[in-house]
Amino acid sequence: MTVLARGSSLLRGLLGRGPALGESAAPRVLSPGTAGRGSAGFRSSGVRYEAVVISGTEMAKQIQKEIHQGVESWIALGHRRPHLSIILVGDNPASHTYVRNKIKAASAVDHVDERTICNGISPEKDVDGFHIINIGRLCLYQHSLIPATAGAVWEIIKRTGIETFGKNVVVAGRSKNVGMPIAMLLHTDGEHERPGGDATVTIAHRYTPREQLKIHTQLADIIIVAAGIPKLITSDMVKEGAAVIDVGINYVHDPVTGKTKLVGDVDFEAVKEKASFITPVPGGVGPMTVAMLLKNTLLAAKKIIH
Amino acid sequence: MTVLARGSSLLRGLLGRGPALGESAAPRVLSPGTAGRGSAGFRSSGVRYEAVVISGTEMAKQIQKEIHQGVESWIALGHRRPHLSIILVGDNPASHTYVRNKIKAASAVDHVDERTICNGISPEKDVDGFHIINIGRLCLYQHSLIPATAGAVWEIIKRTGIETFGKNVVVAGRSKNVGMPIAMLLHTDGEHERPGGDATVTIAHRYTPREQLKIHTQLADIIIVAAGIPKLITSDMVKEGAAVIDVGINYVHDPVTGKTKLVGDVDFEAVKEKASFITPVPGGVGPMTVAMLLKNTLLAAKKIIH
Repeated sequence: MTVLARGSSLLRGLLGRGPALGESAAPRVLSPGTAGRGSAGFRSSGVRYEAVVISGTEMAKQIQKEIHQGVESWIALGHRRPHLSIILVGDNPASHTYVRNKIKAASAVDHVDERTICNGISPEKDVDGFHIINIGRLCLYQHSLIPATAGAVWEIIKRTGIETFGKNVVVAGRSKNVGMPIAMLLHTDGEHERPGGDATVTIAHRYTPREQLKIHTQLADIIIVAAGIPKLITSDMVKEGAAVIDVGINYVHDPVTGKTKLVGDVDFEAVKEKASFITPVPGGVGPMTVAMLLKNTLLAAKKIIH
Repeated sequence: MTVLARGSSLLRGLLGRGPALGESAAPRVLSPGTAGRGSAGFRSSGVRYEAVVISGTEMAKQIQKEIHQGVESWIALGHRRPHLSIILVGDNPASHTYVRNKIKAASAVDHVDERTICNGISPEKDVDGFHIINIGRLCLYQHSLIPATAGAVWEIIKRTGIETFGKNVVVAGRSKNVGMPIAMLLHTDGEHERPGGDATVTIAHRYTPREQLKIHTQLADIIIVAAGIPKLITSDMVKEGAAVIDVGINYVHDPVTGKTKLVGDVDFEAVKEKASFITPVPGGVGPMTVAMLLKNTLLAAKKIIH
């Protein structure tokens, strides 16, 4: 399972080159009439937002530059170059479904236990952050190797300058390597050993009734969605000026081109008219996840987390 | 710190004999006019709730009976009687403040690290559930020794028959031994190895603005409060028919008697007019925490969690 997760992260990295760019952290505030779209996005003040599209691709480049510098200084001190060994079954990105099915089939007959594999890795080399010790440390607000996707969401929020202190956050999705660690990072104390976001966090999931999800997202200053449902978050569910982080990866049939395309969980075109910040899919959380995996590799090589 | 937590749990147990009783799990539905109170509690149907007061004391007795039976069957199989060794500094319940201060003072000069102590205990004997392995297991939805207060809240909800699936829950308080594990138990999947509550959970805390807390609690079907603030939860914050679990322990000056009395975080008298279920302080979560500590002791003796 670790293999698959890492593989799909890389896949996302490969696919993650969107056209969107958002170097500035300040929201572009448009006055009425500067865009020809409906009035749904207008505030009582008369100004309205169009979201800054956060480019995960660009941000990931910056982080990779930092990692590169970190690696070089580390080697300059006489240390060995950090290594990341990826056990990727199959070498063609397009074969991921086949690989997934193969692993599924294998685990059904071989009783490969995901947890046994995760705990079998030495915790200080566990760059995925899935070892029980790393999860324990994360949940006890200590330094740990943080699951890469959760780390990516955290870095996007922090580097963009999106305020979390005392804010309402909805995390839609409760998986133990994405939704759960994101909720953990965001609700915890900013003064802890591993500082948290001090946000009020609502954890929603498949059993949250849709109308309740809408009530919660309408209150949210930040919406983070990792549900695997295209267009789960629509414009009417988003408060004006909210930040929207899309962790979804869905392959859908495009009736226009007849091809399969990658989309997230957010109705991007409509929501970006209302949000202050938004991440695209592809080119948002995906490439940042790869960058965070590399960052974890450097941290592991330096044995900073132990 | 472990010492203190366990000491104060026991203290709660000693103090936890309230007059309230609630053997029935069905809410008492009163028709209008049966009580001379205001109309705030009326539903559109004309009936209104007065909360069933859940007696933690009575429920704890039942659990202790079950544990007793469990211990006897265990011994009958030739095993040694389970032992719980409590390192309680000071033997007078009233001296807990003094003990707390002594521990505080000692840790300031001796550098006693709470985490080192928790992790120093063998995880399978860690009846407090504070060891990093137990926290990791809890957060990975595996069987674990669950922190006693969180276990108490869970048992109160389940044994009373309060529905959690798809419901809105607010947990006010984010401590790692109370609020965090409660949120973890309630939001997770009911189909996991260690079944969760499948609720939508909002984690609130000291940095949640009061007016935002109110918005969240008004949406909540279940409110769990562990904040240490008397009357934090007032009647206007509670949805009609909600269940209210009070984990607060506050010693306040009673101007009528001139003495110190124990109160929770809920404005009990007012909220019980609106809630469907409510736990009192004392006599609610306190005695149940002691029962769950004993249950953990039996589980540890049987080496069921490993």
